[in-house]
Amino acid sequence: MTNYINGLAISLPGLAVDNQELAKCFSLNEEWINLFLGNRTRHFGTNLRTGEQTHSLCDMATDAALRALADAGIARGDIDFVILATATPDRLMPATVNEVATQLQLRDVQTYQLQSGCSGAIQALDLANVLLQSGRNRCGLVIGADACNKFIDPAADYGKAKSSELINYALFGDGAGAVVLSSVRGARQLALSHVHYTFTDRGWAPGQVVEWRGSRAEQGEMLREDYKAIEAKVPVLAEEVLRHLLGCLRASIRDVQWFLPPQLSGRMTQQLVDRLGLPESRAINCVADTGNNGNALAFFQLARLADVIEPGQRAVAIAIESSRWLRAGFILHSESV
Amino acid sequence: MTNYINGLAISLPGLAVDNQELAKCFSLNEEWINLFLGNRTRHFGTNLRTGEQTHSLCDMATDAALRALADAGIARGDIDFVILATATPDRLMPATVNEVATQLQLRDVQTYQLQSGCSGAIQALDLANVLLQSGRNRCGLVIGADACNKFIDPAADYGKAKSSELINYALFGDGAGAVVLSSVRGARQLALSHVHYTFTDRGWAPGQVVEWRGSRAEQGEMLREDYKAIEAKVPVLAEEVLRHLLGCLRASIRDVQWFLPPQLSGRMTQQLVDRLGLPESRAINCVADTGNNGNALAFFQLARLADVIEPGQRAVAIAIESSRWLRAGFILHSESV
Repeated sequence: MTNYINGLAISLPGLAVDNQELAKCFSLNEEWINLFLGNRTRHFGTNLRTGEQTHSLCDMATDAALRALADAGIARGDIDFVILATATPDRLMPATVNEVATQLQLRDVQTYQLQSGCSGAIQALDLANVLLQSGRNRCGLVIGADACNKFIDPAADYGKAKSSELINYALFGDGAGAVVLSSVRGARQLALSHVHYTFTDRGWAPGQVVEWRGSRAEQGEMLREDYKAIEAKVPVLAEEVLRHLLGCLRASIRDVQWFLPPQLSGRMTQQLVDRLGLPESRAINCVADTGNNGNALAFFQLARLADVIEPGQRAVAIAIESSRWLRAGFILHSESV
Repeated sequence: MTNYINGLAISLPGLAVDNQELAKCFSLNEEWINLFLGNRTRHFGTNLRTGEQTHSLCDMATDAALRALADAGIARGDIDFVILATATPDRLMPATVNEVATQLQLRDVQTYQLQSGCSGAIQALDLANVLLQSGRNRCGLVIGADACNKFIDPAADYGKAKSSELINYALFGDGAGAVVLSSVRGARQLALSHVHYTFTDRGWAPGQVVEWRGSRAEQGEMLREDYKAIEAKVPVLAEEVLRHLLGCLRASIRDVQWFLPPQLSGRMTQQLVDRLGLPESRAINCVADTGNNGNALAFFQLARLADVIEPGQRAVAIAIESSRWLRAGFILHSESV
């Protein structure tokens, strides 16, 4: 059974922060960011001067959801369920998905919030697909969002911070994306035909750990990443997803028009695209402009894809979560009328 | 379509802490706990003397899952998916469900972690039901667990703490429960025939807020509860679930043999049972012994139910999450051979 992406939207907080500004705020080297990360801009839901959170996770997720509903041209009452995937909830309770449902003034819907990372958007699409296939629902909102930067402290001396902390401000960004997924085809004619998601434990240590911390002031690092492990293992898992999805299509890379590769930094994604042998002009990569906004990022790729995909074309998306090595992907068709 | 609870287990950390010991540790009045909460014991995953966490969420969830697998008499390889419902993850990433899957040495399964509260066990059963109904899976692990008490600080002067903080130590407990849910009937012959779950926004303010905090040392209250709102609204929503489920059965209270009511404290549940007109001897309430362990609590009720339900009998379970007023319930049949 095929479901359809009938509405699609993204939400970015505030203005783009470029490498020059970022380098100034966080005592980073601008050339190093350009060269080693390849990210040019990112957006923060926190004011860099005051440290005030200007955009909560709920704000961004609600904004993306409202735009996706408008894009689909449907009323709130048509929504049967809401799934929010995030690594960075506003609070532990109420779950942010329920705050979003409150803001959207939804009534008697099912709401689910997934605690997830870079493959969260696809985990959520996977669950939405199953909820629609069950026949009990016709239409749902699927949202991916992250507010990674809520603990920026303008009073802190970032010149003394560890480089392993500072790199995160250059890598990660805040943002939200949402789709309206339905069992009935809408004007966009974007058909989600396969969703693949699996936990793959191979005795590998976590590639990313995010502690449950309330503020920057607490001891210890909140976020730890093993970049060597990520660099070595993400290509292996990405290739597995690519082979799996091409197998579902009984197709080769040449038969697929668009690719949505995993994105960590602009540079790492570039290397991955080369390694997988994907045609560069057909690989949609937006992390260099938006920063890695985690659970939202696949929706940013989808929004770009929607602008260029033509009827009859197919796209393959791949996402890898390096925390405990989750493997995810999907196939999208632009159906001819 | 009906699915079956083929395995069922609970896990409680450490020894039961009675009201005398609790009153001593937290400068509470023992009589007041007995009288106003009606809870007798609870379990903490944190050592009250040293403040060390002895049982993480992953520890308790893994223990309950292993026991549920043993109870079902199935191998790990038979598990297609794992859903963990919790309000209190060990970390933000990796999601604790993936740490549990790692501990269980599962391979190529789907893992989902729901950020949820008192209705989380039923949200997870609802999703598991849908995953099984989709036909792509035959068997899944559904776990509910909470480690609420990880921030107990033996050095703190609890005599100076607000009573709104102290009451939580008397109300809440740590623990985990797990079931093996399958589309194939097992020896227990417990059939899950209806699962009901819905977000109900009626313009009510949240009844419970849990901030995302890393330690007790941070400013502000981590947990805030509006007991008046909970006392007024939980019975209204509980009655709605009861009517809905009885409607599904085309039955009255007299036609149902067992009830699993919402549980906040021993005393509040008692009042609710009276108000709903449920026969007291048929209402299964364990919060007075285990403390309110959130996402785990419905599984503790289920474990008691499994000991008393007889072939041909039916049970109705109700759970309400007061954070943003989520309404949940299910119907269970003990099938005759």
